[in-house]
Amino acid sequence: MIVVMKLEATPEQIAAVEKRLEAMGYSSHLIQGVERIVIGAVGDKKHEGASSLSLLPGVEKLVPVMAPYKLVSREVKSEKSRVDLGCGVVFGGEEVVVMAGPCAVEDEAGLFEVAEKVAAAGGKVLRGGAFKPRTSPYSFQGLEEDGLKLLAEAREQTGLKIVTEVINPQDVELLSAYADLIQVGARNMQNFALLRELGRQPRPVLLKRGLSATIEEWLMAAEYILAEGNYNVILCERGIRTFESYTRNTLDISAVPLVNRLSHLPVVVDPSHSSGDRELVPALSKASVAAGADGLLIEVHPRPELAMCDGPQSLTPEDFARLMQELHVLAGVCGRTVRAPVPEGATRGE
Amino acid sequence: MIVVMKLEATPEQIAAVEKRLEAMGYSSHLIQGVERIVIGAVGDKKHEGASSLSLLPGVEKLVPVMAPYKLVSREVKSEKSRVDLGCGVVFGGEEVVVMAGPCAVEDEAGLFEVAEKVAAAGGKVLRGGAFKPRTSPYSFQGLEEDGLKLLAEAREQTGLKIVTEVINPQDVELLSAYADLIQVGARNMQNFALLRELGRQPRPVLLKRGLSATIEEWLMAAEYILAEGNYNVILCERGIRTFESYTRNTLDISAVPLVNRLSHLPVVVDPSHSSGDRELVPALSKASVAAGADGLLIEVHPRPELAMCDGPQSLTPEDFARLMQELHVLAGVCGRTVRAPVPEGATRGE
Amino acid sequence: MIVVMKLEATPEQIAAVEKRLEAMGYSSHLIQGVERIVIGAVGDKKHEGASSLSLLPGVEKLVPVMAPYKLVSREVKSEKSRVDLGCGVVFGGEEVVVMAGPCAVEDEAGLFEVAEKVAAAGGKVLRGGAFKPRTSPYSFQGLEEDGLKLLAEAREQTGLKIVTEVINPQDVELLSAYADLIQVGARNMQNFALLRELGRQPRPVLLKRGLSATIEEWLMAAEYILAEGNYNVILCERGIRTFESYTRNTLDISAVPLVNRLSHLPVVVDPSHSSGDRELVPALSKASVAAGADGLLIEVHPRPELAMCDGPQSLTPEDFARLMQELHVLAGVCGRTVRAPVPEGATRGE
Amino acid sequence: MIVVMKLEATPEQIAAVEKRLEAMGYSSHLIQGVERIVIGAVGDKKHEGASSLSLLPGVEKLVPVMAPYKLVSREVKSEKSRVDLGCGVVFGGEEVVVMAGPCAVEDEAGLFEVAEKVAAAGGKVLRGGAFKPRTSPYSFQGLEEDGLKLLAEAREQTGLKIVTEVINPQDVELLSAYADLIQVGARNMQNFALLRELGRQPRPVLLKRGLSATIEEWLMAAEYILAEGNYNVILCERGIRTFESYTRNTLDISAVPLVNRLSHLPVVVDPSHSSGDRELVPALSKASVAAGADGLLIEVHPRPELAMCDGPQSLTPEDFARLMQELHVLAGVCGRTVRAPVPEGATRGE
Repeated sequence: MIVVMKLEATPEQIAAVEKRLEAMGYSSHLIQGVERIVIGAVGDKKHEGASSLSLLPGVEKLVPVMAPYKLVSREVKSEKSRVDLGCGVVFGGEEVVVMAGPCAVEDEAGLFEVAEKVAAAGGKVLRGGAFKPRTSPYSFQGLEEDGLKLLAEAREQTGLKIVTEVINPQDVELLSAYADLIQVGARNMQNFALLRELGRQPRPVLLKRGLSATIEEWLMAAEYILAEGNYNVILCERGIRTFESYTRNTLDISAVPLVNRLSHLPVVVDPSHSSGDRELVPALSKASVAAGADGLLIEVHPRPELAMCDGPQSLTPEDFARLMQELHVLAGVCGRTVRAPVPEGATRGE
Repeated sequence: MIVVMKLEATPEQIAAVEKRLEAMGYSSHLIQGVERIVIGAVGDKKHEGASSLSLLPGVEKLVPVMAPYKLVSREVKSEKSRVDLGCGVVFGGEEVVVMAGPCAVEDEAGLFEVAEKVAAAGGKVLRGGAFKPRTSPYSFQGLEEDGLKLLAEAREQTGLKIVTEVINPQDVELLSAYADLIQVGARNMQNFALLRELGRQPRPVLLKRGLSATIEEWLMAAEYILAEGNYNVILCERGIRTFESYTRNTLDISAVPLVNRLSHLPVVVDPSHSSGDRELVPALSKASVAAGADGLLIEVHPRPELAMCDGPQSLTPEDFARLMQELHVLAGVCGRTVRAPVPEGATRGE
Repeated sequence: MIVVMKLEATPEQIAAVEKRLEAMGYSSHLIQGVERIVIGAVGDKKHEGASSLSLLPGVEKLVPVMAPYKLVSREVKSEKSRVDLGCGVVFGGEEVVVMAGPCAVEDEAGLFEVAEKVAAAGGKVLRGGAFKPRTSPYSFQGLEEDGLKLLAEAREQTGLKIVTEVINPQDVELLSAYADLIQVGARNMQNFALLRELGRQPRPVLLKRGLSATIEEWLMAAEYILAEGNYNVILCERGIRTFESYTRNTLDISAVPLVNRLSHLPVVVDPSHSSGDRELVPALSKASVAAGADGLLIEVHPRPELAMCDGPQSLTPEDFARLMQELHVLAGVCGRTVRAPVPEGATRGE
Repeated sequence: MIVVMKLEATPEQIAAVEKRLEAMGYSSHLIQGVERIVIGAVGDKKHEGASSLSLLPGVEKLVPVMAPYKLVSREVKSEKSRVDLGCGVVFGGEEVVVMAGPCAVEDEAGLFEVAEKVAAAGGKVLRGGAFKPRTSPYSFQGLEEDGLKLLAEAREQTGLKIVTEVINPQDVELLSAYADLIQVGARNMQNFALLRELGRQPRPVLLKRGLSATIEEWLMAAEYILAEGNYNVILCERGIRTFESYTRNTLDISAVPLVNRLSHLPVVVDPSHSSGDRELVPALSKASVAAGADGLLIEVHPRPELAMCDGPQSLTPEDFARLMQELHVLAGVCGRTVRAPVPEGATRGE
């Protein structure tokens, strides 16, 4: 930490800052600039309440030197982490893993139909919400445990893994009994009680970035889960809130290479929530793969125009299969792989 | 809802939209514009999945006509609501109620000292966090129930009401046993499980606006609480996230008169979190009263330079007393009241 | 400037940074932290291209220590500046100077009517655009020099000073022949050719903050004008762009006390553009005075519902007079003054 | 335009709105909803001051139905426009045209070196600023006409076209004598005097998006140029301002497919200003091509660590050549082309 003193700081004020730093366990190093004094504070751990130093007379401001995250950092672990859902579904390796499915689990027939088509198109994980966080208390809130059961059946039938969202710390145990990957939604990114609960169980966690979360805050939220002992965390960029209103959110594509530099955790992109507009999803999916994403989370609905939520951002299964074919080719020239769709009429011979 | 058709929409596409609207229970009204057709959809309730209409061929976009909130709206209840904490502490009346105290409850001596000074200065509610949502898992997370007990003792000694934050739905019952007013922090504004829990118990709730929540989303979050039966909700503007970095957040002062127009619920301001800078707190507090706020939530710490959190934005008790005197005078010319500080040495003869 | 080295920086890399700093005219001071090295660079001027130091091997990041603005800073000039338009119209003194009038000069009769009413209500400066920067090329672009002539006539008749906007460097001379105060609009805050032109002439300048300008950038824009020799600059906060869509912009009320701390220049507020909503203007005007603004810039139109631009944010003359009465009382308890309206039927006996 | 009436609007108020619409040249169509009346206003042109309708008693709000841009719109011209700089350099066709070079023209040797390397790597246009808009008045402001001359010489030597920025309407003629493509920087996107001047001359214009400009405002700025007669406009996404501070700006990658849908104008991306970080430039360049960009504008400097401006975001020529090879391959699978680098030692045999 660097303490920048005011132009008019007196020797007494400087001495007082040094004394206070010492009391906090820091050693201090004075730099006499042309105009003002700067004090380097050296110590081996972050001191609770260090920010209050800025209130000492003569202090202009504090400048932190180190990033606050540790366990999630590339400095601590330089090689990329792999999060393994089993059966060869691994995030953080060569494959760009595609997760797809409806916003919410609505009914059995629709879910099974979409699951089969997702699998045929090359998707490896089925998404679908059973507990839905909705802006309005009057909107459909999900089928809850019945939805989880349907997801589990769809897994049986298709071999897809399943990812679904948790919104209450009390439901973590239930979710972890059904899901292969537990999603934390954007609105809960700083629901610390929930994060801590997820850190104490072994299921991998998909942590969406908050609507207005900085990358640093997002990494700190992941740190909560790792700090409790669960290292199987995947980060998901899903668009941030800006002034632009033609899109639902603004996909921060830079977050992909940036998180890849700062952290060893896999990072995936949700192009559907990022844009809120299914016509943009193919371009954003391709951009994400080109930028180095480790996976994609795409909304697919058998009949988007009848969807109970997020219809406008859902692809049809046919659009999705076309996109998978394009992604398969694209990944090939980016040093990555995306599973290709099965040709119409054929079955996957794996 | 208005359905705007594309320039090139065909009569068949228009007919299909009308048919779909009918199936959803709307009656439809065509307006033939100079260039394009617009369809007015009339119906008595919001249809689940209406947004998917935008996917029908020939549709350009949908335009919602009505605000999504109901119970919190001035259209439903035109007179201002009063939220009564007992003993004459009422939000939404003539008085601008001042809540003050430390960011976190740290220890008994400090809390009691600040409580007495807050009461002497004219504050009516003591704030203090027992459960702290912190960006870092390594930061002080609060004294939990021990903190609640200290707050309750401070209430005994001073007659102040107490407000404290809940971060986990499981703790609602515990909090409601101690607090006079339960705070939902900015990060939990869309923690719907928590909101619903708070709606099912009778304690008044102070609902902070999320860091990047629109006013509409904030009112919808309040709607969650009212929809479960608890009408005692106070809204708290605490700054939104913008690109400006000289302040911690940007106080959206317009939210005060705007919420006063849209909703009957009382609205208060937290100038401390809004700015993150104690030197700005007096100006922002005065601006809030001048703009029509029903209350203030101000951080006061006996020794801000030693605070475990948020020291830089905490006033000293002396600064707070000075500010209260100014607010007392200011409120007087704004048709409102703020309780005046007791002169040094005197006691409040109420 | 502080150079933070990477954890794994080698002694050779550190030596290379020191050598480079020396070549740039800095002396360097090493601080050996527990984990990493930090280098303080001391020198008496900002070096062109110093930011490129971040590219040297082993460098983690650079941390600037000093604010980039000089002439506008309180550190350089501690007492508040006064900008004097003549005839006792002074910004930066005890009086909160109110400027009011229509968005655009539309016609003689309307302008004269509003000018008289603004003067009667206590306003001291008449606003009105002759050159209008409009988002659409098809919108009314102003009466240009004819508009300036009407403003000058209105000044003759009422004794009000006039403020009007310049949008082209070529028009500065023309504007400065008519206006008492030349306004730079938000969209031109970083039109550096225009700023420099304004710095080379003596008329006072009202510099609006850009829609997404940080306070630092805004002060740097003012620095452009001062650096050319014109010290008569008034800063105008007019709302910044955020995600909130219920208001046209978000008034950053904190900017008022913050600019007052950082700079000696007077700072005023435009509550009309900040909100885009005339119903919010009274609350925001009062908040601005309470927060310490040195002036207000308010849109008033004789018949807002017929205005050619910005009707929705314009007060009627009657609303304006009522507001002035309230501001007059409010300023009184804030240690400031606002000129009171003349009672109906009377004339101002000054 | 749709006029939404208040719940409590009276028949007289409704009649008054209808009368006013008629006076403005609209015909009005009433829709009686379950709760409130909505009026559709039909007319063949936008009425100056229509927004003031919102002030009539009983009006809740206005909802515009049509986008404000015309000439730039896909509805007016459905096929993609091509902007041709001559010698086969065409934006809007199959090729993704790469523009590269230093932030500012600094000296002859450096410029010629970089120009040759840009050409060898497959770039087709040389970028370089001669007039630099700088945040600080004390920073290097460019070589002005001397810089233009150097650019022209570099064009002679390499066959590259040149793009350079204009910041003052008075310089348009000068710039148009030297440049093949005239750039409008982000800060000048709404410098309407400049836009109009550029519309009156024939050189193609590269219009950067403003730091906080909505896509609609950006298209309206282009409309200014087209409305004056110059249809050769290329749009350039260069990052928008958000709360995220790890990057200089946030690249809005969605703008690429969105502008492609809304407008026929070519759209290119500047990954250097978007991120401010050269390590992110390759990923963002690839993402832009994958998302459908018609070109790229990339900062390349022979020795970034010595650059006078924007060093941290500049690639070395070697990095640039490597990136071009990757883009060449990537474009191939996206149905586009990027010119491949000449192998080391060879010359381009075109």
